[in-house]
Amino acid sequence: MKKLINRPENFVRESLEGMMLAHRDLIRINYEPSFVYRADVPPQGKVAMISGGGSGHEPMHSGFVGHGMLDAACPGGIFTSPTPDQMLAAAKQVNRGAGILYLVKNYSGDVMNFEIAIELAHSQGIRAVNILIDDDIAIKDRLYTQGRRGVGTTVLAEKISGAAAEQGYNLHQLADLCRKVNLSGKSMGVALSSCTVPERGIPTFTLGDDEIELGIGIHGEQGKEKVPMKSGDEITDILANSIINDPNYCRIVREWDDKIGKWVDLELLNKPFEKGDRLLAYVNSMGGTSIAELYLVYRKLAEICELEGLEIVRNLIGPYMTSLDMQGCSITLLKLDDEMIRLWDAPVKTPSLRWGI
Amino acid sequence: MKKLINRPENFVRESLEGMMLAHRDLIRINYEPSFVYRADVPPQGKVAMISGGGSGHEPMHSGFVGHGMLDAACPGGIFTSPTPDQMLAAAKQVNRGAGILYLVKNYSGDVMNFEIAIELAHSQGIRAVNILIDDDIAIKDRLYTQGRRGVGTTVLAEKISGAAAEQGYNLHQLADLCRKVNLSGKSMGVALSSCTVPERGIPTFTLGDDEIELGIGIHGEQGKEKVPMKSGDEITDILANSIINDPNYCRIVREWDDKIGKWVDLELLNKPFEKGDRLLAYVNSMGGTSIAELYLVYRKLAEICELEGLEIVRNLIGPYMTSLDMQGCSITLLKLDDEMIRLWDAPVKTPSLRWGI
Repeated sequence: MKKLINRPENFVRESLEGMMLAHRDLIRINYEPSFVYRADVPPQGKVAMISGGGSGHEPMHSGFVGHGMLDAACPGGIFTSPTPDQMLAAAKQVNRGAGILYLVKNYSGDVMNFEIAIELAHSQGIRAVNILIDDDIAIKDRLYTQGRRGVGTTVLAEKISGAAAEQGYNLHQLADLCRKVNLSGKSMGVALSSCTVPERGIPTFTLGDDEIELGIGIHGEQGKEKVPMKSGDEITDILANSIINDPNYCRIVREWDDKIGKWVDLELLNKPFEKGDRLLAYVNSMGGTSIAELYLVYRKLAEICELEGLEIVRNLIGPYMTSLDMQGCSITLLKLDDEMIRLWDAPVKTPSLRWGI
Repeated sequence: MKKLINRPENFVRESLEGMMLAHRDLIRINYEPSFVYRADVPPQGKVAMISGGGSGHEPMHSGFVGHGMLDAACPGGIFTSPTPDQMLAAAKQVNRGAGILYLVKNYSGDVMNFEIAIELAHSQGIRAVNILIDDDIAIKDRLYTQGRRGVGTTVLAEKISGAAAEQGYNLHQLADLCRKVNLSGKSMGVALSSCTVPERGIPTFTLGDDEIELGIGIHGEQGKEKVPMKSGDEITDILANSIINDPNYCRIVREWDDKIGKWVDLELLNKPFEKGDRLLAYVNSMGGTSIAELYLVYRKLAEICELEGLEIVRNLIGPYMTSLDMQGCSITLLKLDDEMIRLWDAPVKTPSLRWGI
């Protein structure tokens, strides 16, 4: 393993330190427990958006802390969930009296720890709700996840909901919006290579010289299938058509009901895309794939969407949710409405996403 | 070789097509000869900034076309200079009557072809000058370069000069500024892995499992030396101190003198940094290295600069000038003055660099 690191066990902290030195105008970091939060103090009465998860996916989530996106991010170890005390401490730091929306990717460890954090927050008089992101259509019910995994839609939900929070949405309006974003997005990824966790020092899984893995997870966990290497257009075709042809997906998710102070089970439904839908197309690098290759994927994706009568009206292309040094990409399609477009276009100023300011 | 491409010989074109589809609001592409140019038409009397070079370094240069940066970029094949007809056609497209500044990285092929383009432009009544970027302190006089190679300062010069052109600098003022930027910047890179040119299909060079190459070129061409793998801090220390302790560097460069219509030889001098200098620190990924690692490098770089009495007042961190899938990074330090800071902060809106708009 060759990486620009010192001792593997210090990697996450030293990288965060560098990030803060580079972006003192935007972020602050608390250590023990560790969380990244906005340098500016939003007005009293603004709902706070907090996300978090294992490290190794940079710039997600810490790179998205700032005006118009997250109020705080809780980084765990590499590919390891953060702990409830990080989430509670972050909530205390950024709470402006209007409650916390915890945005949670659907992995068992994250789900459990954020649920504990919500109960802790409530016991200390801080309102908090959880919205789950479970947009990966590739697989369902595996060792580390019940239902579908949370992937690319997370970044889009952070941007759109972050803008809404900035514009004064209250906690329930924000939860409704964020749930809508999750129900409007579908993703699938592909790995051309494995990734190497610094503390382990060897690749997480193996792929043959002429083999790729469709439906790969963002931690290198098992995807849908290993298949022989294909052209960029063929790979794009498989990912895009799997997403576009994904049937109704119905599941029960557990959310904290802030009004009655209890956990409730909600039945949620993703519907397939329909001709005439307006989309945000997000082509994401897994870390080791160049932007030139992402544009080649986008070219084919745009062609497929046009053939299907789907109109791409916004896009995001780059390494925003990575898996360390993995080569490969993921595609996320998000069905937009006027509200989401307006919020997507709203100003944002974070270390890794910035426009309009 | 596993990459998200179709036929290697179509990679550059298909990637550009995807880029244009993704950024129709910002750029247009001409094919045969191939160049990328701004979608908006700047006012008559604005000097046009054009750069170009081999592909494989994306987002440089095409990703920097737009308001406040380049008016056009000429992409060659992978690691291959563009041709004079591309440069001339781009000049004709974006000329607004005030002349063209061609920004040229110091590689023999690029230098020669841009010189031919200037003579062609002049023969057709278009004023044009060339400014050379030669900021790589690692090596001097090799097979593909006389003097030092042009690397990271190119991106900074495109941003700073692009802002100045937008603000109405005339051709001579802009050439003076751009030359000053080049004389204020020094860079050095390191490779942790080789890169693979698609049409070749095998790594350009070899590195042992425990070996890195200091002073690597952006095409994978030979650097200063191969050394055993070191920690991120040690590597940063070598790069930063090599840059900071680089002595006076004097050389003769050939520029077109627009006033007398002749080539002239200018003697140029880079001086070492001095205590109290204000710097822009630019930590660049070679393509396959994550932003988390770049922040770890930045952390050590900030510490070294502080010890040396150098004040980092601006920074840029990310994959802006890549070498296909190469793992590694480069550091560029640029001495700033008030004029350069003002221009760096000016609004920019391109596919890959955007702020203030």
